[in-house]
Amino acid sequence: MATKTNGESKVSIPRLLLGKPLATHDLPHQTVSKPIGLAIFASDALSSTAYATEEILLILALAGSGVAVLGLSIPIAIAIAVLLVIVTISYRQTIYAYPNGGGAYIVARDNLGEVAAQIAGAALLTDYILTVAVSVSSGIAQITSAFSWLLPFKVEIALAVIFIVTIINLRGVRESGSIFSIPTYFFLMMMFVTLGLGVYRYLTGTLPTVTEVEALQQETMTSLSLFLILRAFSSGCAALTGIEAISNGITAFKEPRSRNAATTLTWMSGLLVFLFLGITLLANRIHVIPSETETVISQIARTVYGNGTIPYLLTQIGTALILLMAANTSYAGFPRLAALAAGDGFLPRQLTYRGSRLVFSWGIVFLAIAASILVVVADARVTSLIPLYAVGVFLSFTISQIGMVIHSLKIGKLKPGEEHKGLETTIRYDPHWRIKMAVSAFGALCTGIVMIVFAVTKFTTGAWFVVVLIPALVLIFFRIHRHYKSVAQSLTLRGQPVKVAPRPVQTLILVDDVHRETIQMVNFAKSLGHPWRAIHVGVNPEKAQVLPEKWKEYIGEGEIEIIPSPYRALAGPLRDYLEDILEEHPDIFIHVIIGHLAMDSFWQQALHQNTAFVFNLALADLDHVMMTIVSYRIYDATAEARDEVSHAAEPGARTHRHQRILEKKKQQQSQSGETSKETENTSS
Amino acid sequence: MATKTNGESKVSIPRLLLGKPLATHDLPHQTVSKPIGLAIFASDALSSTAYATEEILLILALAGSGVAVLGLSIPIAIAIAVLLVIVTISYRQTIYAYPNGGGAYIVARDNLGEVAAQIAGAALLTDYILTVAVSVSSGIAQITSAFSWLLPFKVEIALAVIFIVTIINLRGVRESGSIFSIPTYFFLMMMFVTLGLGVYRYLTGTLPTVTEVEALQQETMTSLSLFLILRAFSSGCAALTGIEAISNGITAFKEPRSRNAATTLTWMSGLLVFLFLGITLLANRIHVIPSETETVISQIARTVYGNGTIPYLLTQIGTALILLMAANTSYAGFPRLAALAAGDGFLPRQLTYRGSRLVFSWGIVFLAIAASILVVVADARVTSLIPLYAVGVFLSFTISQIGMVIHSLKIGKLKPGEEHKGLETTIRYDPHWRIKMAVSAFGALCTGIVMIVFAVTKFTTGAWFVVVLIPALVLIFFRIHRHYKSVAQSLTLRGQPVKVAPRPVQTLILVDDVHRETIQMVNFAKSLGHPWRAIHVGVNPEKAQVLPEKWKEYIGEGEIEIIPSPYRALAGPLRDYLEDILEEHPDIFIHVIIGHLAMDSFWQQALHQNTAFVFNLALADLDHVMMTIVSYRIYDATAEARDEVSHAAEPGARTHRHQRILEKKKQQQSQSGETSKETENTSS
Repeated sequence: MATKTNGESKVSIPRLLLGKPLATHDLPHQTVSKPIGLAIFASDALSSTAYATEEILLILALAGSGVAVLGLSIPIAIAIAVLLVIVTISYRQTIYAYPNGGGAYIVARDNLGEVAAQIAGAALLTDYILTVAVSVSSGIAQITSAFSWLLPFKVEIALAVIFIVTIINLRGVRESGSIFSIPTYFFLMMMFVTLGLGVYRYLTGTLPTVTEVEALQQETMTSLSLFLILRAFSSGCAALTGIEAISNGITAFKEPRSRNAATTLTWMSGLLVFLFLGITLLANRIHVIPSETETVISQIARTVYGNGTIPYLLTQIGTALILLMAANTSYAGFPRLAALAAGDGFLPRQLTYRGSRLVFSWGIVFLAIAASILVVVADARVTSLIPLYAVGVFLSFTISQIGMVIHSLKIGKLKPGEEHKGLETTIRYDPHWRIKMAVSAFGALCTGIVMIVFAVTKFTTGAWFVVVLIPALVLIFFRIHRHYKSVAQSLTLRGQPVKVAPRPVQTLILVDDVHRETIQMVNFAKSLGHPWRAIHVGVNPEKAQVLPEKWKEYIGEGEIEIIPSPYRALAGPLRDYLEDILEEHPDIFIHVIIGHLAMDSFWQQALHQNTAFVFNLALADLDHVMMTIVSYRIYDATAEARDEVSHAAEPGARTHRHQRILEKKKQQQSQSGETSKETENTSS
Repeated sequence: MATKTNGESKVSIPRLLLGKPLATHDLPHQTVSKPIGLAIFASDALSSTAYATEEILLILALAGSGVAVLGLSIPIAIAIAVLLVIVTISYRQTIYAYPNGGGAYIVARDNLGEVAAQIAGAALLTDYILTVAVSVSSGIAQITSAFSWLLPFKVEIALAVIFIVTIINLRGVRESGSIFSIPTYFFLMMMFVTLGLGVYRYLTGTLPTVTEVEALQQETMTSLSLFLILRAFSSGCAALTGIEAISNGITAFKEPRSRNAATTLTWMSGLLVFLFLGITLLANRIHVIPSETETVISQIARTVYGNGTIPYLLTQIGTALILLMAANTSYAGFPRLAALAAGDGFLPRQLTYRGSRLVFSWGIVFLAIAASILVVVADARVTSLIPLYAVGVFLSFTISQIGMVIHSLKIGKLKPGEEHKGLETTIRYDPHWRIKMAVSAFGALCTGIVMIVFAVTKFTTGAWFVVVLIPALVLIFFRIHRHYKSVAQSLTLRGQPVKVAPRPVQTLILVDDVHRETIQMVNFAKSLGHPWRAIHVGVNPEKAQVLPEKWKEYIGEGEIEIIPSPYRALAGPLRDYLEDILEEHPDIFIHVIIGHLAMDSFWQQALHQNTAFVFNLALADLDHVMMTIVSYRIYDATAEARDEVSHAAEPGARTHRHQRILEKKKQQQSQSGETSKETENTSS
């Protein structure tokens, strides 16, 4: 069996790109240590420090470029850091409560019901797409900061990067590979050195300020207002994206997994706060100039190390790499969540299908297309994407924490020592449930307020799109769900039983012309042994006129009926004909036999009308009409010659099979020749 | 029958755009008088005067803008006029020799064989596409000359115009409609008045010279050379495009059609020479400034009538209209020639198919797409398209005239009074065959030389594309031809006869799950009365494990076999399984029954895997394996409600039928319910 299935592994472009298929039992079940877990799950969160400070400064710069205005970035960053701590504490609780994975979707489904779960799902799916677009765009901005001649090609580079990441993910990425931890730790190292050296040079008075940056072109200055400050705060909140990653991936940690995951989360948040505040402070010290052509990270590194130096370039490369890793995490998260929602019947079921490399291929492809469209529309500019970003993340934070409030309430209802086994997790009595509930509620309140601030302050610059999109997606999810439920109801065998009840069969051979394939069709119809006749849709009047004669000459038995088709339609007249028969004989099966010429290649196939598929589609809604496609393979003389050559060169399984078929065909032809002679003898 | 077929005429977007279907016997067979024929067939040729002079001047302007240089356009135009007279005389002979239509393709096929015919075909098809692109671009240039604020939208306007012309042609245009003659005669009138008034104002000394034109921006001046003059000549030869139109359409003329067609051709050529020389002379008199923003016609009309005057605008509109008519003629010529070549087996056979409105829909759609691509690539600039244009026309002129030389030779071989009936035409002895042959040979020589001049002088600016494209097309045409021939050989019943030889049938029911549709499939399999069993491809191991039990519980008879699929492939393992059976029993038919859930809408269908079609495609190359698709229609509750409402509002045929199916389904369900009860009673 194994060698035969390998027969399929012909060398093709998809095969070259994706590698050979993997068996179902190959699904990985490895677990990771805390340092590796940190590296894998932290890239999304930590990488956001590459643009969060910059986005705050770009908004503040609308009111001026002085220290008094841009210096506001420091209190804003501190506020964001406080929010981060609150969310972290709240998410630690979720990790302990849902040791099998506590993403917002699962927590919402378990505690708040389908609607909340689908809202969280829509929000998260949207943000996974944005994570790819933002991270790739920012990563390329880091590179173009160092190599400005690449600037005109940033969209093309972004699309190429997305394509490559997509192919890698379609091949299947072992998340547990420790190779994944290299970019994260490399980035951390570079940032520590940069920030440390920056502080050292500042203290020794040798830190210069930024020069030679093309400042942002402002058309009109707005005055500094609370609204603008809140807008800057919203932009900076992009720093919080990705901190939910660990709660989705608890099962990937070694036991005790909840504790390990929670510790990792604390570490990650600590690093995130440190980097974010450090970058913001140093950016203010060196008087970073908000710019569209050079990132804040690049300005800091350039100021600290000097223009064009090796450590400067390493910092840029390290930052670009962790951003790439962040984009890559969405390629794990999006397809997995989409498969989860599809399994619940809210997304097309195809999303649950694991491709030949065991990955959810459809989800990966959809993510790649959607992110590519975003990159093209936003011209690979992070600033254009930020208003769309993070609304979804904060919405899912809020839903998840409200879910945890309900979860705590459930625990509160238990008696001491009582246990209740749910679908997702087991709830046990906990005397601290009130405190935990308060923490979740406070977290929900904070993130909920931020979400509203975000939606309001960014509404006109892009958040409106997400505000419209998420409800629209939820609506679509529920329509899909209703459809699947209705189909399941139509098909169920529970309730009124349907028993098998055979019917008489009337065979009809749909004939286009009289040739070798027609013989095969008549052969099959006769083999079935039910009453049969041939029919022809008379699209071409001249052809329809000569057909009965041809039938008589070459087939010599049965009759052929011409169905007139004055408007040259194929399916319509046939449908009318079949309906007339069904009306007259409602208790029979009509068995329509259609011929199909099977070619060796797509292009050859495209030269034929392939009406069998048209008929199949057009008449699929007729009950009690069964359609049989009788394929007749046309062997291309050139292809056969080619096969023989490749057979000589490499005796592969496929060639072998092709050969086998050819030989069988020859045998059968000679046999059928003999049989027909016998038949002739008998009949004569 | 009529009312039933009307049942298909539901109101849809295609129906609204294209109108209701036309019956095959509606094919028009009307003929036209000479004045109408002139208007119909001359638009292509006459409209080329709108850009021919301009293209000569644009090339000459590369060497300077003085009278000494631009004045060369007059001798060049005279040379082109002489060439036109030669071609006209030669084509008159063709019209008499081929009274059933003597396009280059037919003349070449009849006298020079398949290769020459296919070269002519490729050349002509290429030029039909270019005619659309050039005419539409030039027409829009006439309009933007008057309304310069439309200039930024010229590509969008061009695409919109092509789209509208395409829709009109898909609806089907009665060429014989005399409404088609209005634009031609309107254009002729406006040009006569313009040229006449121009000459009058020149003679009375009141004709000013051109002012306020944005001159062409030249980067580097080249010196005046023979090469440049030949290049200008080549550009001006665009004036000759379209004069072959009458020889294609001889059958549209009233009897004596050859004489009427020949007279019309002479008239057309006369008008063409007059207009072309008139425009060139007047352009020189008023010192036209070669420009990218204002056409020569516009500069002449503006100078003669004054800026913004009504007659000026009428001239521009008239010119744009005849250019539109010229584009429209390609919509008749391209699909007709493509259908002719497809009928000979050199193009995909689908091109011979007449759509619901009796037009060759595929050809029209292909022409529209190709012309749109050209317009976008060339940015709707006539000057960018001209180097690609006319190479094909002159190639087909040359082939056609060489064909006529052979034709004359054939006549020369006949004895006096002898007649020979060919496929395309009847040849009769003619004492003047030597003179006619000389005329054709001289014509072929002239057009052949021009073609080479054209290809050489325009090679680097675009002609290389056509020089590469035409041989490539010819190669493709012959590959298609070989394919069709090989298929016909595989299918022919001539030679060794193949007789019907029934075989035993093994029925296999391919089961995905056990539900109502499975019952239908078992029902059909049992009705056929051949040995049957169920099979299931075990993509999902958990599902495969419970399926046999489910089968036992709900079906209760027969067995189900699980085909393992470790790599989650569907078609591969099934193919192996079928091949194993065929190996063991080479003399049977395997009849595979596959289920298909038929939904009401495309979107609903897209939510399902539709594996039946996948299997059909993947296993089409297995001989002696027949696949039956058993459709099971899922009725959407919402759709039914919608149908009932629309039924109340408008009792259309389709709704009626839908209703009938629904009622029938209900009847059958209750019937099968009864039957099943009976079966139960019998079995218990």
